[in-house]
Amino acid sequence: MRGFRLAVLGATGAVGSEMLKVLEERRFPIDKLKLLADPNDAGKVVLYSGEQYIVEEARPESFENVQITLVAVNNDVSLHFTPEAVKRNSVVIDNSSAYRMNPKVPLVVPEVNPDDVRYHKGIIANPNCSTTIAVVPLKPLHDYAGLKRIVVSTYQAVSGAGVAGIGELTDQTKQILDGKQISPGVFPYQIAFNLIPHVDYFKDNGYTHEEMKMLNESRKILGLPNLMVSCTCVRVPVYRSHSEAITIETEKELPPEKARELLSTAPGIKIVDNPAKL
Amino acid sequence: MRGFRLAVLGATGAVGSEMLKVLEERRFPIDKLKLLADPNDAGKVVLYSGEQYIVEEARPESFENVQITLVAVNNDVSLHFTPEAVKRNSVVIDNSSAYRMNPKVPLVVPEVNPDDVRYHKGIIANPNCSTTIAVVPLKPLHDYAGLKRIVVSTYQAVSGAGVAGIGELTDQTKQILDGKQISPGVFPYQIAFNLIPHVDYFKDNGYTHEEMKMLNESRKILGLPNLMVSCTCVRVPVYRSHSEAITIETEKELPPEKARELLSTAPGIKIVDNPAKL
Repeated sequence: MRGFRLAVLGATGAVGSEMLKVLEERRFPIDKLKLLADPNDAGKVVLYSGEQYIVEEARPESFENVQITLVAVNNDVSLHFTPEAVKRNSVVIDNSSAYRMNPKVPLVVPEVNPDDVRYHKGIIANPNCSTTIAVVPLKPLHDYAGLKRIVVSTYQAVSGAGVAGIGELTDQTKQILDGKQISPGVFPYQIAFNLIPHVDYFKDNGYTHEEMKMLNESRKILGLPNLMVSCTCVRVPVYRSHSEAITIETEKELPPEKARELLSTAPGIKIVDNPAKL
Repeated sequence: MRGFRLAVLGATGAVGSEMLKVLEERRFPIDKLKLLADPNDAGKVVLYSGEQYIVEEARPESFENVQITLVAVNNDVSLHFTPEAVKRNSVVIDNSSAYRMNPKVPLVVPEVNPDDVRYHKGIIANPNCSTTIAVVPLKPLHDYAGLKRIVVSTYQAVSGAGVAGIGELTDQTKQILDGKQISPGVFPYQIAFNLIPHVDYFKDNGYTHEEMKMLNESRKILGLPNLMVSCTCVRVPVYRSHSEAITIETEKELPPEKARELLSTAPGIKIVDNPAKL
């Protein structure tokens, strides 16, 4: 089996590193791997599958002869480099939100709408973290009972703010335990032993940008343009793994036992509960 | 102005201490103060308004000649002593859940249904912490627009589990920062840097006891026996102050500006938001 010529743009960030870890774990077939980052990180050495790779500065020419580009950078950087990669016939899988709501770009979660990749014209977007973990369980429930409305409260880990967010939780926690003053940097308010119901900026309609992503992206991925969605996004002092409480309203009756049965066989889902434990 | 002869049962616990602090802050008129606790704490000295009080062991006779008894103990202890206090003509304000759903006992939040105290026969119950903070803002919104349904997700601090819960959060946090093993005691799972969607035990219907309190107590306090309530209760690694995300459905249209206006003049509410801060 021949492998792919693959590039990771943003290879040294929190998401890029995680992508490399997953590619390695899944033994994704790679013939040639290119690690791209901004000039500051060029020259760094990264280990992948036991081999050393030197991080290169991303330039338009970097994407020559690359079949697949994974993009793990912010919107501005994606908007700058993604067209360059596409121009050079690379398929871009973009983790930023730059292209998500573009009607020509499929927004795909493999467990939910894999067939949507078929209409791609060079770019495939993947959704916001909170949306991804919501649509995976919602899909099998929708297929059976028809979703009318979802109400979501999130409990989002600091990892969503990258390596710096994780560091800030540790630093602030130590400072508070030592009775010292803290001064917020990555997050707008204290995050240690605290909650921040304010992820990303507020839009004119009173929802945050993060909350509106849940509305717009869920509708696109599930193919339900009229789905009613109300979401409250809250940052919590947890390192990794976002959590969500989702209340749904369906067309057809959906008893808890049926929901449990549907979820137990759905892809990407593991039911974890232990009601007996006190 | 003459004061009352008042007793606090459970005066040395987390809630009892807080009650004393509030009585002192509000300069509640007291002629004679009795601090009652279990035999282990009898003899302890507590400072109130600059005076020393010696904690007494609670006995049935303790309530002789006491006009008001504040009860801050668990259900079993309340069920044991509350009737003894009532028998001796003391009015009992009970913070436990022992009498809350008794139809002869008013369940009162002063900002919401103060007039319900009128039907008391010696016992006035106050609700669960999560319910209290929900009904205070819900009341003015209901009066204007008519509540049909509420969906609540809680973010409950460890203080809800008393002094021991607060200590466990500190201890586990230090252990994790030091790379040590933790062993849960007060909470069924790790609480430091973690969430526990499991407050109190699970009932046969799949909701926890804590979640059902929100349903039953909200209906009773708001006088809405058919109000639809769905609640997910989650313990979060925060020391004090519970938080809740509440999504409501109303009979009449209720634009956000109107809700803000109603809440800004309602008793016990301070609107805190700063959407401009990033």
